[in-house]
Amino acid sequence: MQIGRYFPIVIWAREYSRATLGADTLAAVIVTIMLIPQSLAYALLAGLPAEAGLYASILPILLYTVFGTSRVLAVGPVAVVSLMTAATIGQVAEAGTAGYAVAALTLAFLSGAILLAMGLLRLGFLANFLSHPVISGFISASGLLIAVSQLGGLSAQGHSLPEQIWSLLTQATQANVPTLAIGLSSLAFLFWVRKGTKPLLTRIGLGARLADVLTKAGPVMIIAATTYAVWHFGLDGHGVAIVGDVAQSLPPFTLPDFAPALIADLILPAALISLIGFVESVSVGQTLAAKRRQRIDPDQELVALGAANLGASVSGGFPVTGGGSRSVVNFDAGAQTPAAGAFTALGLAVAALYLTPFIAYLPKATLAATIMIAVLSLVDLSILKRSWGYAKADFVAVVVTISVTLLMGVEQGVMAGVLLSLVLHLWRTSRPHVAEVGRVPGTEHFRNVDRFNVQKVPAVLSLRIDESLYFANTRYLEDLVLERSAANPDLRHVVLMCSAVNDIDLSALETLESLDQRLRDMGVALHLSEVKGPVMDRLRRGDLLGHLSGQVFVSQFEAWCKLTGLCQATDPLAHARRQPSR
Amino acid sequence: MQIGRYFPIVIWAREYSRATLGADTLAAVIVTIMLIPQSLAYALLAGLPAEAGLYASILPILLYTVFGTSRVLAVGPVAVVSLMTAATIGQVAEAGTAGYAVAALTLAFLSGAILLAMGLLRLGFLANFLSHPVISGFISASGLLIAVSQLGGLSAQGHSLPEQIWSLLTQATQANVPTLAIGLSSLAFLFWVRKGTKPLLTRIGLGARLADVLTKAGPVMIIAATTYAVWHFGLDGHGVAIVGDVAQSLPPFTLPDFAPALIADLILPAALISLIGFVESVSVGQTLAAKRRQRIDPDQELVALGAANLGASVSGGFPVTGGGSRSVVNFDAGAQTPAAGAFTALGLAVAALYLTPFIAYLPKATLAATIMIAVLSLVDLSILKRSWGYAKADFVAVVVTISVTLLMGVEQGVMAGVLLSLVLHLWRTSRPHVAEVGRVPGTEHFRNVDRFNVQKVPAVLSLRIDESLYFANTRYLEDLVLERSAANPDLRHVVLMCSAVNDIDLSALETLESLDQRLRDMGVALHLSEVKGPVMDRLRRGDLLGHLSGQVFVSQFEAWCKLTGLCQATDPLAHARRQPSR
Repeated sequence: MQIGRYFPIVIWAREYSRATLGADTLAAVIVTIMLIPQSLAYALLAGLPAEAGLYASILPILLYTVFGTSRVLAVGPVAVVSLMTAATIGQVAEAGTAGYAVAALTLAFLSGAILLAMGLLRLGFLANFLSHPVISGFISASGLLIAVSQLGGLSAQGHSLPEQIWSLLTQATQANVPTLAIGLSSLAFLFWVRKGTKPLLTRIGLGARLADVLTKAGPVMIIAATTYAVWHFGLDGHGVAIVGDVAQSLPPFTLPDFAPALIADLILPAALISLIGFVESVSVGQTLAAKRRQRIDPDQELVALGAANLGASVSGGFPVTGGGSRSVVNFDAGAQTPAAGAFTALGLAVAALYLTPFIAYLPKATLAATIMIAVLSLVDLSILKRSWGYAKADFVAVVVTISVTLLMGVEQGVMAGVLLSLVLHLWRTSRPHVAEVGRVPGTEHFRNVDRFNVQKVPAVLSLRIDESLYFANTRYLEDLVLERSAANPDLRHVVLMCSAVNDIDLSALETLESLDQRLRDMGVALHLSEVKGPVMDRLRRGDLLGHLSGQVFVSQFEAWCKLTGLCQATDPLAHARRQPSR
Repeated sequence: MQIGRYFPIVIWAREYSRATLGADTLAAVIVTIMLIPQSLAYALLAGLPAEAGLYASILPILLYTVFGTSRVLAVGPVAVVSLMTAATIGQVAEAGTAGYAVAALTLAFLSGAILLAMGLLRLGFLANFLSHPVISGFISASGLLIAVSQLGGLSAQGHSLPEQIWSLLTQATQANVPTLAIGLSSLAFLFWVRKGTKPLLTRIGLGARLADVLTKAGPVMIIAATTYAVWHFGLDGHGVAIVGDVAQSLPPFTLPDFAPALIADLILPAALISLIGFVESVSVGQTLAAKRRQRIDPDQELVALGAANLGASVSGGFPVTGGGSRSVVNFDAGAQTPAAGAFTALGLAVAALYLTPFIAYLPKATLAATIMIAVLSLVDLSILKRSWGYAKADFVAVVVTISVTLLMGVEQGVMAGVLLSLVLHLWRTSRPHVAEVGRVPGTEHFRNVDRFNVQKVPAVLSLRIDESLYFANTRYLEDLVLERSAANPDLRHVVLMCSAVNDIDLSALETLESLDQRLRDMGVALHLSEVKGPVMDRLRRGDLLGHLSGQVFVSQFEAWCKLTGLCQATDPLAHARRQPSR
C-alpha cells in the first residue's frame, strides 16, 4: 500500500488487461498526432529550438506514468508555462544561444526540485493561496499575450502587451507577403477544422470516433501542406521563416548549469512556474478524475510533476506540466491508464527519430497559427462579470491580475494577484461585521436588530462579532465597543456573542483585558457568550477569565435571562457534557 | 468643531486657566530637566552631534502642541527610533559627516510625509498589522541592542548583536581606565537614584513631589559632576571621549536632501520607523488618556506626529515620536494640556542657547550610562512566557522577532515579525477547525460530537465550519467534506452549519458548486444552515442557490427535523423578519 502511494504505477499495472491496452493505444495515437505540432510550437514560444518540444514530452511523460495519480493527465510543454519560461530566460540569456537552452534546463531543474520538495514536505496547500479569480484572470491574460505575440511570428516580442504592440507596429512595414498568406490560410483552415469539419464528416457517413480523430489531425494536415508548399515553391528563399535543420535523435542527455548567480536569478520565477503549473495540472486532473469517480492525490501529484521536470532538465527539455487540452483529448479518446502516456512518449520518440527531416521546411507562421488557435480557448473573460456581480474584492483582484500581466509581464501579474488577494482578505477581516443582536420574542434566538423585530433593553448591549479576534482587528473592535458603550449612559452590561469567533490570539486577549478595564471604569461589566470549545480551551490558558468583570455564558439566551431578569434559563447542556468544559 | 478636529489646540486653549498654567509650568520644569540629558544622548545614539537632540525636541514639540490630541504626550527623540535611525543612515553615509546629518533630515522628512499622508487618508489601521507580541518583542530586543552598544561607548557598534559583541571584544584591550571609572560610577549612581533616593528623601522630610523632582534630576546631577571632573582634571587629555564644542544657537533652519537615489534608499526604513513610532506613541497616549477618561484620535495623532517630523527635518533634527518614559513623567508631574509641551520646548531652547558651552567637557560615557538605564526599562521578556502559555503561534512570532532583531538588525526584525504573524494567521485560517455536530437530546442545541453526548443519524452528516470560506481554505474543506462523505455509505445529506462563516468569496462559491456536484454524483444532497445575513445577501448574487441539490435552513434544528423526520420545526423568525431575508 505504501509503495502504491509513492509509485501509483504498481496499483494500475497489476490490473492491466488487453481491453485497457486497446483503449490506451488508440488514445495514444490520437494524442501523439495532436502533440507533435503543439510540442514544436511551444518550444518556439519558449524561445527554444523546435525539437526541444519533442524532448520535453518524452522522458517527462514516462516519469509521470510511474509517479502520477491521475489516470489521464498528459504532461508536456503547455502554453502558459512556455510563455513564463520565455519571459524568465529572456532576462538572463539571449534567445537562440547555447546559454539560453542551458538556462531553460536549469529552470526545469529548479522547478522540478521545488515541486518535489513541496510534495515530500506535503506543502501542496501553498497552491491554495492562488485564488480562483487570480488564476482565471492570469490564464486569460497569458492567452491574450501569447496570441498577440504570435501575430508577429514566433520570436519573443517582449514580455508585455505594450512592448508587443510596439514591436508589431515597427515590423509591420517589413511584413512578408508569402508568410502572411501562409499564416492567414493556416488560421482560416484551423478555425474551420475546429468548427466545421466534425459535423461535415459525420454527415458524409463517418463514425463519430473517426471524425474526431480526423478533426484532431487538422494541425498535422496544415503542417504537412504548408511544409510541402514551402519546399516545392522554394518559399524560404522569398523570406518565409522556416524551422530549419533539426537534429534527428532521441532526447540527448543534458545537464543544467548550477552557477549560483544563475540559480539566484531563476529561483523565484521557478517557484512561480511551479505553482502555476501545479494549479493548472491539478485542476485539470481533479476535474477529469471526478468524471470517472476517481481521485487524485495533490501531494503525490507534486512529486510526479517534480520528477517530470527533473526529467525534462536532463533530456534537453524545459519546464512542463499537465496540459488542459491534451488531457481532455486523452480522456475523450478513452485512455484508461497512464500507459496511454507511455505509448504517446513512444510515438513522439519515433517522431523525433524519423520525422524531424521533414520539419526543416515547416514555416514558423503555421506553428504560430496552431498556437493562436490553441490559446484562444484559454481566454475566458466571463470571470470579470461573475466576480463583479458577486464580490468586488474578487473583481479587483481579477482586474489587477489581468492588467499587470498584460502591461508588465507574467511574473509580475501572478505576484500582484496573489499579494492583492491576501491584502484584500486581511483588509476585510481587519474591519469585521459586528451586529447588535436582540431576542426574537418568545424564542431563544437572537438576531441582528437592523434586520429583525427583536427585543432589547437599554442596560444590556449584545454584540455579535462576525470574525475571529486577532491582531489586525482587535483595536478596531475595542474602539467600536467603547464608542457604542459611551453613547448609552444607561448601559450596565456588554455581552460579546462569540458564536462566529473562531480564534482569539494574544493581541486580542490583551485587548479584551484592556477593554474590560475601561468598561469597568465606566461602570459597565463585560460578558462573553457562546464561546466555542477550542477558543474556550485557549482562554483558560490566559489571564482574562480570572479578572473579567462579567461572566462567560454558555448561550446568549442564558446571558439575556441572567442580565435582564426577564426569563429563566436552564443549562441545556448539563447532561450532554463529556468533560469539565462548556 | 471641524477646526477642532484638525487643530485640537483651539479646543483646550479656549478653556485655559491660571490653575492649568501653574500645573503645566511645573510639569514642564521637571520634563525639561529630564529631557536635556536624554536628548543629547539619543542624538549620539542616532550617530548625530549631541545638539541635534535638543533641536529635535523644540519645533516638533511645538507642532505637536498645535495638532496633537493627547493632553500629555511628550514628543522628541526616543531610544528605539534613534536606534533605527542609526541603523538606516549608517547604510547610506559615514557617521559624523555632513551627508549623515542631511540623510537624517531626509529620513525625518520622509517619515513625516508618510505619517501625514496616513493621517489624511485615515490609514491608521495599518498599524494594527503590528501585533502586540511582535511590538513587545521588538522593543525588548531593541532595548538590549542599545544597552550592549552603550557598553563600548556611544559610537555605533554595528547593527546586530554579534557585530556589537565582536566590536566590544576587539576594543577591550584599548579600554581607557578613566572612561571606565566615569561610566561605571555614573551607572552605579543612576541605579541608586532610581531605586534608593526617593524613599531616602521622603524619610528626611521632603514632600513627595519635591523628592520626585530631585529624583528626576539625577541624570542632570551626574552630568554636571562628571563634566566638572573632566574639565578640572583635564581627563580629556587622558583619553576620555567628550562631547566637544557645541554650537550655541536656536535650532538652525535646515533642508533635507531630495536626491531620488537617497529617497529610494530611505523610503522603506522611513515607513517602518513611522509605523513603529506611531504604535509606540499611540499606545502610550491611549494608556494615559484612559487614566483620565480622555480619548485620543489615532488618525489625528498621525497628522500631529507627521507635522512633528516635518518640523524636525527643517530644524536640524531627526525622526521623533511620542516617548513613553517622558510622557509618563509629564503625566505624573501633573501636566494638564499640551501647553506643558510648549513650555518644555521653551526650556530646551534656553538650554540650547545658554547651556551648550558647559556641555563641551561632558564625557560620552556618562551619556552612555543614562541611555543604558533608560533602555533597560524597555526590556520585558515576560511576553515570552505569556505567549508560550497562551498560543504557540504568538510565541513563534515573538521569538523570531527578537532573534532577527538581535542577529540581523532592527529593520529585518520588524519585517520578519510582521510577515511571520501574517503568514501564521493565514496558515491557521487555511486549515480551519471543523466539528461534526449532533443534537443535544431534547433541545434545539447542536454541539461537537467529540465534546458532548449528542444524537446523530447515519444518513445526515452535520459539519460546523469554524472559519470564513475563502480561497486559502476552500480546497482543504472540499477534500475534508468529500473524505468524510465517502467514508459513510449510508449518507444521504450533508449539512454545512455556517454560524461561524463570516464570508464566502468567489473561490469558495465555485468550490461549493463543485462540491455540490460531486456529492450529487454520490447520491448525497448538500444543505446549508444558519447562514448569516450578510453572507446570505452575497450568496443570492451568485449561482449556487439556484443549483443547490439541498436547501438553505434558517436553523440547524430546522435542518435536523426536516432531514431526519424526528421532530417538527416551526420557523422561529416568521414574525420577526423585517425584509424578505432570513
